Formats: sequence, structure tokens, C-alpha cells
Amino acid sequence: MGKKRNLYLQTIPVEEAKEKYLSAVSSIVDVKYETIDVTQSLDRVTAKAVYAKYSSPLFNASAMDGIAVKAADTSAATETNPVILREDQYVIVDTGDPIHPPCDAVIMAEDIVETEEGVKIIASANSWQHIRPIGEDIVAGEMILPSSHKIRPIDIGVLLSAGILKIDVVKKPEVAIFPTGTEIIEPDAEIEDGSIIESNSRMFENMVNVAGGTGHRFPPIIDDYEQIRDQVSAAVDTHDMVIVNAGSSAGTEDFTVHVLRELGEVLVHGVAVKPGKPVILAIVRGKPVIGLPGYPVSAYIGFENFVTPIIQMMAKRTEKLTETVEAHISKRLVSSLKHKEYVRVKVGKVGDKFVAAPLARGAGAAMSLVRADGFCVIEQSSEGVEAGEKVNIDLYRSRSEIENTVVIIGSHDLILDVIADIMPNRYRNMFVSSTHVGSMGGLMALKRGEAHMAPIHLLDEETGEYNIPYIKKLFREPMALIKGVHRIQGIMVKKGNPLGIKGIADLAGGDIRYVNRQRGAGTRVLFDYRLKQENIDPESINGYDREMATHMAVAAAVASDGADAGMGVLSAAKAMNLDFIEVGPEEYDFAVPVKHLELPHIRAFIEILQSSGFRDRIEELGGYSAENAGNIIMM
Amino acid sequence: MGKKRNLYLQTIPVEEAKEKYLSAVSSIVDVKYETIDVTQSLDRVTAKAVYAKYSSPLFNASAMDGIAVKAADTSAATETNPVILREDQYVIVDTGDPIHPPCDAVIMAEDIVETEEGVKIIASANSWQHIRPIGEDIVAGEMILPSSHKIRPIDIGVLLSAGILKIDVVKKPEVAIFPTGTEIIEPDAEIEDGSIIESNSRMFENMVNVAGGTGHRFPPIIDDYEQIRDQVSAAVDTHDMVIVNAGSSAGTEDFTVHVLRELGEVLVHGVAVKPGKPVILAIVRGKPVIGLPGYPVSAYIGFENFVTPIIQMMAKRTEKLTETVEAHISKRLVSSLKHKEYVRVKVGKVGDKFVAAPLARGAGAAMSLVRADGFCVIEQSSEGVEAGEKVNIDLYRSRSEIENTVVIIGSHDLILDVIADIMPNRYRNMFVSSTHVGSMGGLMALKRGEAHMAPIHLLDEETGEYNIPYIKKLFREPMALIKGVHRIQGIMVKKGNPLGIKGIADLAGGDIRYVNRQRGAGTRVLFDYRLKQENIDPESINGYDREMATHMAVAAAVASDGADAGMGVLSAAKAMNLDFIEVGPEEYDFAVPVKHLELPHIRAFIEILQSSGFRDRIEELGGYSAENAGNIIMM
Repeated sequence: MGKKRNLYLQTIPVEEAKEKYLSAVSSIVDVKYETIDVTQSLDRVTAKAVYAKYSSPLFNASAMDGIAVKAADTSAATETNPVILREDQYVIVDTGDPIHPPCDAVIMAEDIVETEEGVKIIASANSWQHIRPIGEDIVAGEMILPSSHKIRPIDIGVLLSAGILKIDVVKKPEVAIFPTGTEIIEPDAEIEDGSIIESNSRMFENMVNVAGGTGHRFPPIIDDYEQIRDQVSAAVDTHDMVIVNAGSSAGTEDFTVHVLRELGEVLVHGVAVKPGKPVILAIVRGKPVIGLPGYPVSAYIGFENFVTPIIQMMAKRTEKLTETVEAHISKRLVSSLKHKEYVRVKVGKVGDKFVAAPLARGAGAAMSLVRADGFCVIEQSSEGVEAGEKVNIDLYRSRSEIENTVVIIGSHDLILDVIADIMPNRYRNMFVSSTHVGSMGGLMALKRGEAHMAPIHLLDEETGEYNIPYIKKLFREPMALIKGVHRIQGIMVKKGNPLGIKGIADLAGGDIRYVNRQRGAGTRVLFDYRLKQENIDPESINGYDREMATHMAVAAAVASDGADAGMGVLSAAKAMNLDFIEVGPEEYDFAVPVKHLELPHIRAFIEILQSSGFRDRIEELGGYSAENAGNIIMM
Repeated sequence: MGKKRNLYLQTIPVEEAKEKYLSAVSSIVDVKYETIDVTQSLDRVTAKAVYAKYSSPLFNASAMDGIAVKAADTSAATETNPVILREDQYVIVDTGDPIHPPCDAVIMAEDIVETEEGVKIIASANSWQHIRPIGEDIVAGEMILPSSHKIRPIDIGVLLSAGILKIDVVKKPEVAIFPTGTEIIEPDAEIEDGSIIESNSRMFENMVNVAGGTGHRFPPIIDDYEQIRDQVSAAVDTHDMVIVNAGSSAGTEDFTVHVLRELGEVLVHGVAVKPGKPVILAIVRGKPVIGLPGYPVSAYIGFENFVTPIIQMMAKRTEKLTETVEAHISKRLVSSLKHKEYVRVKVGKVGDKFVAAPLARGAGAAMSLVRADGFCVIEQSSEGVEAGEKVNIDLYRSRSEIENTVVIIGSHDLILDVIADIMPNRYRNMFVSSTHVGSMGGLMALKRGEAHMAPIHLLDEETGEYNIPYIKKLFREPMALIKGVHRIQGIMVKKGNPLGIKGIADLAGGDIRYVNRQRGAGTRVLFDYRLKQENIDPESINGYDREMATHMAVAAAVASDGADAGMGVLSAAKAMNLDFIEVGPEEYDFAVPVKHLELPHIRAFIEILQSSGFRDRIEELGGYSAENAGNIIMM
């Protein structure tokens, strides 16, 4: 226990930390420039205003096919008194051809008649008619682009037209990224007990690129003061900015902050934000050096708050990288006045409003960042938001994608992944998003208007009927049931069934470590129903209170010897290479309000259920039958 | 005149052409895939769903610093009856360390006391407390990303954590781009009479990249049927798509359509859109081949309508590349029922509404695409929109940039370019946009609420005073005048003044070709005032009716021998290397409603006028003085 524990004696609010650090950096930072080929300049930022070298058109040019003339020669022409122009009085021109003095007008081809004596015209020409004067589009010397402008494809075209081949642009800041930690390993290394795969640095590298810099990821450094100090110090000389990423061990942050204190000045250590408190903001020999926390979500939030604005400042980029949308939060969120909090949310558009459903709040859950569509930010001055309240969500998925997504909340099954995979492949720009809260949780979310449909498998003890009795009991509005699959539930045990479990009765007694599903999950309802049928007291099950949220989480617990048995579907057991003791089939269907049935993405969802492609895929998973899949029962 | 003219016998509506072509292409197109390193996969699109290879955490891991114990060993512990754990009953762990059986709980460091006999605890531990179970974040076998998903930095982190090092992604479609035309030259070639610098292909190349493909630009092909045919035919075999860009000559399109008819099938020739009618949509040996018009604006619109959706289809990209905003159109736009029309607009946010001001409608004006912020699209079924009507604008500049832009409409001066250059350099994310309609036009726009300020130089004939009398006459709301510069107006003539012009009187008589400014321009007001003073009849000026919109356009006309003389400011004469006969100084100021004065970007504008940096820059231009610049006169 002898390790030194580093406590944050005080943290400062996010906005204060940002203001303090950005103003310090902006006073020392050196924006760099470089000269590059215009053809390679897409998305780069102009260093200074660019002025046209040539005019466009380069010369007075005919705007029509016809003849170039001297307007004065034509002034007498009328319908009754035509004028004949001799060969030396006109020049045949096509659109774009140059017009030279003494010619100062163009007559369209359809307005002339060729005769033996010359060309006959029956109307006078005004001087400069049908001529695009030199510089009509661009005048030499005129400003084409201002400074700090992000170059678009059209700009490249115009720059070249104006004779500009090279352009001065802002040099992308070069950012060194150091992963640190003795227990971290490279993603391709062999896994040993206690290994943690290093992946934050690769996320950072790409976040640097998105913000407008160039990320350079270095190999991991072990937890060694001198090594960290020497490498960071060297990188400060060769890069514009340095990021040090703590390993996951608590000791690592110590090194980083002490190293940065030795090398330069630490302006901020610890920010009042959750997740993401252990941020270090330093300046070393005129360069920004930032220490970011090890947990992926904390690392992401720390990066967005402090690294992105510094890179944008150095790259002279101004664009907002996230879109904001107003949404109704689906449940109450309590937050402390001690920090600003970023809560990951899934966002869906149900009816005419956006709904945001909070996800796990743990800092370690990187996958929840992938699953999430954005953040609900709760300011430090707020104690939280009430269910149904309107909140602003910072999106990191595109708004149009969210608007075309089927929002599913309810029981989890692997077939949802299959549908989510098929959907965007077969239906352009349509997506499926699912949140797993169990069958009852799904019906409640549906009732509150937070989802388009709820996947459920709820056995009615009285009638023995699945799903329909629950929907009838809970809803007043017209509802439909989209038939899904029959699937086999069973007890998942380790390969070879070492404890010789034969059925539910064997789970009682306390020797077998069971892992259960959460209250409201259909699998829990089924388990309780079977316990009752067999007169088993839940108290006699060791682990009855240990709850997991999905079949796969239960399967993983058994596979890793965290438990001896758990109930779930065959596909999950197969995915984790477990043995499976069949308990019985059940009906896994989708409850949906009738009003949503005609939405294009709901129709697409139903078509997928009915398709042979879907049936082939779930046959591979095993334990399913899908004869009625996609049938609709109105109620 | 013998060239064959190719007329479009009929055009078809844009949506019909798009539907016809996209459905034909979608039935033959072959989406390709490739396997790449996950670390290189940013912004690529997944070919299929990706499933986790490893769980994360990889093992049951401690969530705290403390000791790992067997929960059963602790069950008797209470405050009054502590339990002492022997050395073989616990393992010291840090956050992230693995937990092995028989340990099944973690007690936090702060809840234990080390004693000589062992570790003392005063509360029992629940099994699995403070343990992150294996797979809490990601379960091996679980879907991480669905198919057709655009990969973000966070996805890269999670993929690596889950043991995925390589990923199957959609291959970017390879697009061959052929510029054609005998008169076109490379941007670095020597310019000859009639040369047109080829730049469309470079715009296309970058538009291909933005849409998700890889553009390959080939050297220009001269107008030769066989050469075009052979090169296009070869490219069809080696690329996924081919673009043929007509030169600017009318004859070229002939070749393209005939070549494509010989090589494959032309589905559409001519689309009812303005600009951009001469589009050719063909399929050659199973590959899309598109002929685009030569004028840059037509080319751009043709690309966005027909090339972008095909590339997105092949690249499986779904994002909308432009943002749409609702704006009030500043003037009436009449459009024909014969076509859908794309009108370039400048968009500004004045007060709480967006205002869109139409720009030039000519197809040749590429610079207007650079100056514009978006398109107002008038559907074929509409005859146009009325001034003030709400319209949807497809933006191609970011909305936040537009919201932070000072909207200036009025008289043109080169100092506006200088301010537009300084602004975003000194003030992060603030911009200046100016539209040149002359002083009176600017005041009218200001009155209609379409601009923040109007630059004007209007001499009141009665009082001899500049600007203030006009503002007082026109406005009822509280107005201010921001003082700008004194500048010298004069007559611009060719270098060496070959016609010996000494003053305005010399312009009369008809021998000297004059070029004038448009009605309502301050320079025109000044010219008319001087003609009146000297009793000169405007009818006696050759070219009095020939109007140009800016000082630079007038200077360019004189420089290119399109005219002998024109009135303008010294900076324009210097920019075009002309001689300058001084007429007199005038006051160029900014009219602004008082209500806008406190906006941050208006304040920034005023600060720039007052700055020494600005004064140094305009001194270089010549012909200005700026003693009072930035002073504010309230009226």
C-alpha cells in the first residue's frame, strides 16, 4: 500500500481553466506559415489575403457565336435599310474568342445573313454588346480570398484562373502524443494478465487531425520519471504542442505533473468536470503541454475542452466541430455543484421532437462514447435536469443521420445488431439505434414517447400468452405488435458443464455462483416464473441480486469465471463459447404505436424482418425461428 | 461561320434526370471494399459490421485502489466487531489491476487499517463491490460498429481496445477527370491571345475528394474526336467513374456527346437548369461517365447535382454536404418555368434574421461563387420569389461564420478588402463581407435591414457636405456615421497619358472613349456634379452610358484599351498601373444604425479603422488620408 496517492487539493471550474490557459497560450503561441501548391490547398487556411495576378476573362471576349464589328459601322442599319459589311469590316467569332480594336461589338450569328457582297444586318449594334469585358469576373489586383479563409474546391478553381499557383497557408501545428504507463501494451502485443491495450493515443492522433493539426503518436513510455521527462523535453523542441497521456494507474499522474513542474510552468492541475478531472495544463519553453487522464471518456472530454481550442488557435481554424440540438431528456439527471458534468446520451427523433436518453456515466466506458450520439452538458451551477426538460445536446453524429434513425428501447437481443447492420446497407441513410433497458423499461420509454418501438418478451403468467397482454394493459393509444422471433432461453454454463447443472432446480443451495438480469428484463420475468413453478426461494440462489444488463454481459461473466451460471439466449452462449441448458422458447416481438407504422424507416425495419437475407443471418446465430417475423398484429 | 451548332432539342427537369440516372447507375454500380489499418481509418466507411475480438476490460479489474478480498471472509465485520484479514486473505491492488478468484470484492484503501496481525476492516464487503467486471465496457463478440458507418476518432480508440487492428472499409471510388478544349492552357503556361486558363478540373478533383472519392486529373485534351474517345475509353477500364469537361468553346460539347454515344449509352443530354444546362449523363461499359459544361458556375452546379450523389453512392457516404438556412431574399427574383434556377446569394445575419442578397446570375462568373455564401434555388414550377419573401438557402460557408460577419452593402473601395483581411486575423471568427452596389444602393439596402452598414461618398450639391445630409434625408431611426477615409478621385488614363487628357473638359467631343460608373454610385454623382459645374452636356461624352460597377472594373477597361478614360480612385489606378489626373478629394464613410454599434463584430470593425495597422496598410495603397477614421458622429 506504500504508493504515494496524489490528491487534488482543489479543482477550478472548466471555463476558468480554459480562459486562464488559452489566454496564456495565445500570448506566446507562434502561428507558422508555409507556401504550398494551390492544387494541394483544399481545407487549408490562408495566411494572408490573396490578390488576383490575372484578370478573368484575360481579354475582352465574345459572349456569343457571331461576328465582331465596329458598332459605328452598323448605326444606319434598319429592317428597311439593311447594311452590308465588307469582309474587312467584321471578324467571325465563337463564344470566348478575343475581341480586338477597332471591333467593339458582337452581332449574334442568328441575326446576320451571308450574301455575295458581304454580311447583311438589319439592326444597329450598340457598342460593347455581347462582349464580356476583360476582368468581368476577376480584376487583376483584386482580393480573391481574405486571410484566415478555409480553402474550398471553388476557391482552388478561381485562384488558378487568376494566375495564382502557390499560396501561403497556415502550417498545421505538429502535436506530439505520448502514452505512458507500465501496464499498457500496444494493440498488436500479446495479452498478459493485467495488460491494458493502449488506444487513447490513436484516438488523440485522429482528434488532432480533425481539429486541424498533425498528430504524431510516440510509442508508450513506462512509468519512469526520467524517461517521461527526457522524451517530453525533446518533443517540446521539435513540435508545436505535446500531449502526455497518463496510463490507467493512479501513480502515473504524479509523474506527469512533477515532470511538467520541473520542465516548465503548470497553470492548472485538476478541473471541476466529470468525467475528466485530472487534467494538467502547462507551458514548457513557450509550447503548450497538456496532461490528459487515462480513462477514455475523461480523456475525450479533456481533449475537446482544452486541446481542440489550442490546435484551432494555432491552425487559425474557427469552425464549430459539433452541432447543437435541443432535446427532451428522458430521465432525471442529478449533478453536483462541485463540477460541470458531461452525460453521454443517445438522441432520437420521435414524432416532432428530439429525445435524449442518458447512457452510463462511468469514465471507463469508451464503448458508451461510440454508442452515444452526443453530450448533455450540465453546468457546474446546476444541480441537474428534470425528466422531460429541454436541454441542449452537443451532437457528434450528424443531425440528418439521427433524424433517419429508428429509435429502439427495450430488451436486448443480438438480432438487433443484425438489423442495425442490414439497415444502412440496404436503405440509404437509414439507421437503427437500440438502448437496452429490459422489456418493461422499453414499454415505459415507449409510453413516454422516447422511442419508436420497444422489443419485448414478456410472459403473462395468467394466460401464458406473450407480450400482447402487457401492451393492452399499459397503452390507451392504438398499438401494433410487429412479430419478431421465437428464441430459446436457457442456462449458460462453462464449456463442458463442469458443475453438472441440469436445470433451474440445480441453481439453488448457494454453491453455484449465479448472475442475474436486472428487474424488468423479460429474462428475469421468465426466471422468476420458473422459480415459482418449481417452488424455489430466490434467497437460496447465490448471486440472485447480482444484476447485468444484457445477455452478452451475463455470458461474459460466466466465460471469465466471474460466475458459474446465468440465464440467456443461445446466440449469446454460442458467441462466448459456453454450454447451454435449454429452458424453453419465448416470443421476442416489437411493440409500436400505430402512428409510427408508416414512417419510411419503420417500414424499412419491417421489410428487413420479412426478408430472406435477415432469416439467413439469424439462422447462423442459432436458437431462433422467424416464420412470422414482420407480421403486424393491430390491437 | 461553318461550325456545326449543337442545339438541345429538349431538356428534362433536374429531378427527373437525377432519378433516371441514379437508378440506372445504382443497378450496375459495384461498391468496392478494401482492408486497411484501423489507425488509418478516420472518415472511412465500414464495409460490414465490426464485432469485438476482446472484451474490455480484458479481466475483472479493480475500480479502486485498495485490497482484493473474498467477500465471505468479511461478512462478520462490524464497527464493534472488526475482522482482521491475514496476509493470505487479501491482495493489494491499484485501480485497473486484475482480480482473480477466490477474491470477489475490493475494499477501498481508506476503509482499512494496517495492523501487526493483518489488515483490520470494520464493515463487510458485498461480493463484486468496486470491481469492473470483464466486458463491462465491451463484450467480446458484441457489435462495435454497424456497416456503412463513418469512422470517428473515438471509434478508432474502441476498435483497438477490442483487439481489432485491420478493418474492411468501402474503397473510395477513383474518378478520372478530363479537361478538353484546344484554347485551354495549363495554369503555369505562357498566356497568348485567346488563351483560357484551365481550372475547372482542379475544382472537380477537390469536389470529388470532398464527396468521398479520389480525383485523378488528366492533362487537357485538344478538341479532337479520336483523342477524346480513346482517352475516355481507356479511363473507363481503369477508373470507377469518368468526368469529361467541355472547353469553353461551343463546338466541344458536340464531341463529348458523340463520343459517349459511340462508347456507350447517353441517358440524358441537356437538363432544365440554369446555369448548367449542357450536362451529359452516360453509362459506358457499366461505369458512369458524365459530361459537364465549361462555364465554372454551370460546371459546379452540374457536379453537385449529378456527380456528388453518384460518388456518395459508390463511397456509401450519406452526409449532407451543405447546410440549409431560412433567409429573407433582398430583391425580387424572376425565373422561368423552363428551368430550375440556382441564384448565388450573399447571406448575412442582420438583427435576428438572415438576409440573402442575390449576386450576378451569369454562368461565367466563377468569382461570384467565391463571393457567394450559398444558392437560392428556384424550383422549375416557380416563377420566382418576391422581395422580402422567406427562402431556403443551401449554404456553402459555415453558418457560424455567417453569424459573425459584418454585412456591408454600398460603394466599393479597396480599403474594404484591407479591413476584410485584417478582421479575421485580429479577431478570431469575425469576418467582413461586402457587396458593391454604389452609395445610394447601399443606403437603400440599409433601410431595408439587409446590411449592418453602408459605405458611402455622396456629395450634397447644395451644402457641399458629404454623406450626412443624405442619411438625414433618408432615415427616421437613430443613425451614426463612422468616419472612414479621405480619398482622391481622378481620371484614370493609360500610362504616359497618350491622349494628353488634362481634366474633365477634355473628355467631351466624342473622340475619347470614356467608361462610366453605374447610376447611384458616388463616383457617378461626383462626375455629374463636375460636368454640371463645367457646363458639359453628358451627351457629348462618348461612353457616358457604358456602366461598370467598381473602380477596378473601370481601371481594367482602360488598362486593356477597352476605353481611354474613366473616373476612379488613385489606389485603383495604381493597382492597374495607370496614370491619374486628380479631380479632388472626397469623404468615404460608413452609415450605420445606432442599434448595431454595440455588436462585437461592429466594434471590431471600428477598432480596426482606428488602428495604426490599418493606417499603415492604406498608406501603401496611396491616395488616402485617415486622420478621423473610426470616429463616430451620432445624428
